[in-house]
Amino acid sequence: MTIAEIAAAARLVSIRLAAVKSDAKNNALVQISDALKQRSAEIIAANEKDLAVAKENNLAEPLLKRLAFGQDKIADVCAGIESLIKLDDPVGKTIAATELDKGLELYKVSCPIGVIGIVFESRPDALVQISTLCLKSGNAALLKGGSEAENTNNILARIISQATEDAGLPAGWLQLLHTRQDVAEMLAMSEYIDLIIPRGSNEFVRYIMNNTDIPVLGHADGICHIYIDGEADLDMAVKLAVDSKCQYVAVCNAAETMLVDEKLAQTFLPRVQTALEQKGVELRGCERSAAIIEVKPADEQDWASEYLDYILSVKVVAGLDEAIEHINRYGSGHTDAIVTENKEKAEKFMELVDSGNVFWNASTRFSDGYRYGLGAEVGISTNKIHARGPVGLEGLTIYKYKLLGAGQIVADYCGEDAKKFTHRKMK
Amino acid sequence: MTIAEIAAAARLVSIRLAAVKSDAKNNALVQISDALKQRSAEIIAANEKDLAVAKENNLAEPLLKRLAFGQDKIADVCAGIESLIKLDDPVGKTIAATELDKGLELYKVSCPIGVIGIVFESRPDALVQISTLCLKSGNAALLKGGSEAENTNNILARIISQATEDAGLPAGWLQLLHTRQDVAEMLAMSEYIDLIIPRGSNEFVRYIMNNTDIPVLGHADGICHIYIDGEADLDMAVKLAVDSKCQYVAVCNAAETMLVDEKLAQTFLPRVQTALEQKGVELRGCERSAAIIEVKPADEQDWASEYLDYILSVKVVAGLDEAIEHINRYGSGHTDAIVTENKEKAEKFMELVDSGNVFWNASTRFSDGYRYGLGAEVGISTNKIHARGPVGLEGLTIYKYKLLGAGQIVADYCGEDAKKFTHRKMK
Repeated sequence: MTIAEIAAAARLVSIRLAAVKSDAKNNALVQISDALKQRSAEIIAANEKDLAVAKENNLAEPLLKRLAFGQDKIADVCAGIESLIKLDDPVGKTIAATELDKGLELYKVSCPIGVIGIVFESRPDALVQISTLCLKSGNAALLKGGSEAENTNNILARIISQATEDAGLPAGWLQLLHTRQDVAEMLAMSEYIDLIIPRGSNEFVRYIMNNTDIPVLGHADGICHIYIDGEADLDMAVKLAVDSKCQYVAVCNAAETMLVDEKLAQTFLPRVQTALEQKGVELRGCERSAAIIEVKPADEQDWASEYLDYILSVKVVAGLDEAIEHINRYGSGHTDAIVTENKEKAEKFMELVDSGNVFWNASTRFSDGYRYGLGAEVGISTNKIHARGPVGLEGLTIYKYKLLGAGQIVADYCGEDAKKFTHRKMK
Repeated sequence: MTIAEIAAAARLVSIRLAAVKSDAKNNALVQISDALKQRSAEIIAANEKDLAVAKENNLAEPLLKRLAFGQDKIADVCAGIESLIKLDDPVGKTIAATELDKGLELYKVSCPIGVIGIVFESRPDALVQISTLCLKSGNAALLKGGSEAENTNNILARIISQATEDAGLPAGWLQLLHTRQDVAEMLAMSEYIDLIIPRGSNEFVRYIMNNTDIPVLGHADGICHIYIDGEADLDMAVKLAVDSKCQYVAVCNAAETMLVDEKLAQTFLPRVQTALEQKGVELRGCERSAAIIEVKPADEQDWASEYLDYILSVKVVAGLDEAIEHINRYGSGHTDAIVTENKEKAEKFMELVDSGNVFWNASTRFSDGYRYGLGAEVGISTNKIHARGPVGLEGLTIYKYKLLGAGQIVADYCGEDAKKFTHRKMK
């Protein structure tokens, strides 16, 4: 099948999938989990092939670790599916209901988006998480995983498709793409595909955003800030700076810039420098920080950099307003934190920083669908429409308006003797 | 100022506008309404200039009528502002709240989108409606109205800006663009503008959609259907077909195709033909309808046409399934209605027709923000993300996650002695 045929078929299936009830979807999820456990030997054999090729190609150790998909990872994804089963069905919820007039009732009801194309990194567990999130939210999915995981992804997709067909769900809701050319073709299918979710490097996400008319949900940069206010608890500030920067440096919600109120720069900077250097962090500082501690100089480019590494840029600011201004200018709208004991300042920061996630006295690393209690996440969005921050089941739905009447016509509500709408809120 | 400077300024203002409280916004709305009434002579004088030019250019009568903005229209928009004041502020609502752990609380709070660019037709009342919707929802607005209304729009924008500045709101939240070149430049400002809402002809909306990286909310086509099921009440069906087609033919929610169940085609088609022809509607029929009533033949192109005129295409179908299939194939996802006394069939139709608005025994013409009780609308969306159907205040908002902690770090929730999340729903 061509990509156009695959996408057109997915569109037809998506209509039927949208009408599948919660019980049937949850039952299918049970069958997926069972099948993954039963067929774990096949999965592991496929994964070993991928690992062998990856080692031949001298893939770096952290990448090999992400690619590995053994018994423990299979148990993990099955546990994830069991949590997903327990979550409310996001589809079919009455969001609002209004009586327009006696016997004319309007319901705003949640429904799946339709067909979602997702491109993700070389982590086989991502395939299971993403496809089961799509299933639970009633969306057909076109998936393209990292090519290093090709064998593992193929067997996983086959097992998941088979299990859902056995459970009586419409076939073809899950389709795997295989090449970059497939992805390029998918990006042109705005007639059939409603949303693209790209995960991966900045360059890759930006390439997707610039090459499709289909709405894209995700983030390119994750330039996150931690602002140490003049009224911060210094011990807490050190702890939060270290965790925000170092707990896992290669991810989008790690801090890249620390802003420090001039009121405490003199005392705070040496302390935080010691703590960060113990973790191997290189500091790049503005002129004012360089006058207090020994640091490499930071230039304009540093404020706009997502290092994803043991590097942190540091800037001394005149106070809250300059911090907010800096973040709104250089940030990527992802996650930004303030450390302060002053509630009013914290509220101002959270109000005026234009980011999807704004934190008070907490590490930027909490910005994550699992930690937020959303179940898994399909990604983190820095969009300002549809869904923002970590995106779970709810972000994969939209709504439709259902109007139930008894033959009412608009002509009766117009002109001189117009009937009046009641517009009574029912929900 | 260049368009880039205008857009950059609007972005800065939008941050401050987002933090303005409900009372201050409502107070500003009162001042706008007062100012429009007080300065009605100036407005009418400007509008007369526009009307004079339009007459010189032989603008068609219906367009002149839409352009006219006299005392009655001013009273109408002021009444609209008073209704808007009464609506809940869509900003600052806690949509959800979760305790992640003791003393670590996550709030999902609604907020404005930011900067919205809206291009609309030559109706000066649209400028007032759109700008006040943006104000109430806390968004900065770049507006471009029809050039025929240039003088009227200029004075209206001036009055509205002045009134809100007098009310203490940040200046510059409302900016008027003047030329097509301005619009073209605005479409490139994805750095500053978060959403574009185009209103107007199919071609115009499609031009906008194809020429910007900024998310676009709206609809190009409005190919709406009415399906007369085999179990329809025939009197009701005739009434609903006539209203859906004729109540106002030039609008997006008017029906363009009528599907008729073969079970009642023989009796229904002659009756509905009489009723529609009395209103001057030309019918274009499939072969099977042409065997029952005298009609021009419909071809493939007709099923995909938005006539916006006294023309209706007619197709006899084998029943509900074919009707649903036809609508999902040729429709534009706008508004589609079923006429039937059978509840189960109605529910199946509303479930499986993939449109923003699905109606049972009601005219397609009800698909409208005012009739839905949303207050005014900025437009009707056939998008499948963010907002669908008529878009009022709520569609102009998004949310941010606010996390309130006491110094928690992620490292404590990882590894062997990991603290557990409570994930207790607070709202």
